[in-house]
Amino acid sequence: MKVIDGKAVSAKVLTECQAEVTSLKAEGISPGLAVVLVGEDPASQVYVGSKVKTCEEIGIYSRKIVQPVDISEERLLEIVHELNVDNAIHGILVQSPLPSHIDEAKIVEAIDPAKDVDGFHPENVAKLTLEDSTGFVACTPAGCMRLLEEYGVETAGKEVVVVGRSMIVGKPMALLLVARGVDATVTIAHSRTNDLAAVCRRADILIAAVGRPEMITADFVKEGAVVIDVGVNRVDDATKKRGYRLTGDVDYQGVAAQCEAITPVPGGVGPMTIAMLMKNTLKAARQIG
Amino acid sequence: MKVIDGKAVSAKVLTECQAEVTSLKAEGISPGLAVVLVGEDPASQVYVGSKVKTCEEIGIYSRKIVQPVDISEERLLEIVHELNVDNAIHGILVQSPLPSHIDEAKIVEAIDPAKDVDGFHPENVAKLTLEDSTGFVACTPAGCMRLLEEYGVETAGKEVVVVGRSMIVGKPMALLLVARGVDATVTIAHSRTNDLAAVCRRADILIAAVGRPEMITADFVKEGAVVIDVGVNRVDDATKKRGYRLTGDVDYQGVAAQCEAITPVPGGVGPMTIAMLMKNTLKAARQIG
Repeated sequence: MKVIDGKAVSAKVLTECQAEVTSLKAEGISPGLAVVLVGEDPASQVYVGSKVKTCEEIGIYSRKIVQPVDISEERLLEIVHELNVDNAIHGILVQSPLPSHIDEAKIVEAIDPAKDVDGFHPENVAKLTLEDSTGFVACTPAGCMRLLEEYGVETAGKEVVVVGRSMIVGKPMALLLVARGVDATVTIAHSRTNDLAAVCRRADILIAAVGRPEMITADFVKEGAVVIDVGVNRVDDATKKRGYRLTGDVDYQGVAAQCEAITPVPGGVGPMTIAMLMKNTLKAARQIG
Repeated sequence: MKVIDGKAVSAKVLTECQAEVTSLKAEGISPGLAVVLVGEDPASQVYVGSKVKTCEEIGIYSRKIVQPVDISEERLLEIVHELNVDNAIHGILVQSPLPSHIDEAKIVEAIDPAKDVDGFHPENVAKLTLEDSTGFVACTPAGCMRLLEEYGVETAGKEVVVVGRSMIVGKPMALLLVARGVDATVTIAHSRTNDLAAVCRRADILIAAVGRPEMITADFVKEGAVVIDVGVNRVDDATKKRGYRLTGDVDYQGVAAQCEAITPVPGGVGPMTIAMLMKNTLKAARQIG
């Protein structure tokens, strides 16, 4: 059994990014990422902080824009429009979730698709579906693909089961895996799937993206499967100082022994997401120039 | 075994369309469809002819625009732009295939998404992926969904296998079937799938969209499955006056007996495609006003 080391692969991706930053700067392009944070959600603050810190580490200019939780939708749209025309900014990310009085889809659609490094704009969703590689792929599924590549996991003709059908992970993951050149046979399973365990047991590669702690147990996993755990769930744990521990969608202890390879949580998919955000920002900088 | 009668369902859809035309006209909206045909491909001429004829039958204004095969891309784009701003036109369809000197994607992207009744514009592809029902769904997969509904075929929790991953049928079909409220467990299989027969035998509902005559034989079909055959293939047949016969992707004679229900070719999915085009045109007219 191999543990898929997301930290190591993420470090490798960031080293690539650093080289690309150097090369962009030599051409007179200084890549920049704007991160907009609305309100004071602690988890969002942590995510935004990590993104800004990673930018600094690899030499990407970053601008953190913090706004109060009662900001109007109109004002937030204005901020996005300003960033769209700001030549110092190549990537724009509005941290999710937004307060309920703001229409998140409307904000995403206001972002210039050429700067939509989260890959959530409809134009980038369409490009993914249409297998047009000029678009931006959502960072988490892009990170999962990179892990499979780095560990030499063959996809062509393999059975992949993606559990979860969200637009952030499940669907883009399925679309990436079924695309020409990747060529997996992809099943999308979800909460309404009958006998989910039996469906998952078909998988040569199992992608868990359901958001339910440790629901993928040993009886869901075929001997020798590769398991990618996208879940990040907080579970109460009195033995931890902060009162909880992070766990994936997969029962790692119960499943690991029978896997060919598996991602841990934390240290698996998580670190890849920020690394792919950096990659997307540099792709945007390269395309915009 | 039930034969799924596409002609009958299509007639029902067209009757609904007729009523909607009457109601739109009462509100002062006269729905119109423009069909652009480039060159003299005989099959395209037949398709365009049927579309125009169906418009006439149900009271939709239609405009057939025939252009020479050597039309420039620029001129074709101009025609599309003119139709985009033409108040008499609510739906625009550029018949595929286009000559090779014209970038088909560019033409599709030039169509106003609000008039893209073929459902091929990236904005409509994104809406389908994002489960936004304000968009237009490609006519053939929409027609397949309507057949399943009309015959009371349960989809929630069922295993569906879609064979084929084209943007015209396979992918939109999979996205429709996995959407919330439809809730099928969907597998997308294709030419690179290992042991395609075994994968297909899992299907409660099997959608064949590969474009290979009669490749889905009895060993691909589970006893009691519902089979939807999207294929329309020409096979040489000296006994026919025209020298060929039309056949689906499914070996109907070999498969039918073990099915719960099956679409014939012709007379299955085929007639639904034009009916759903009419539906889309009326939806466009209703939305544009």
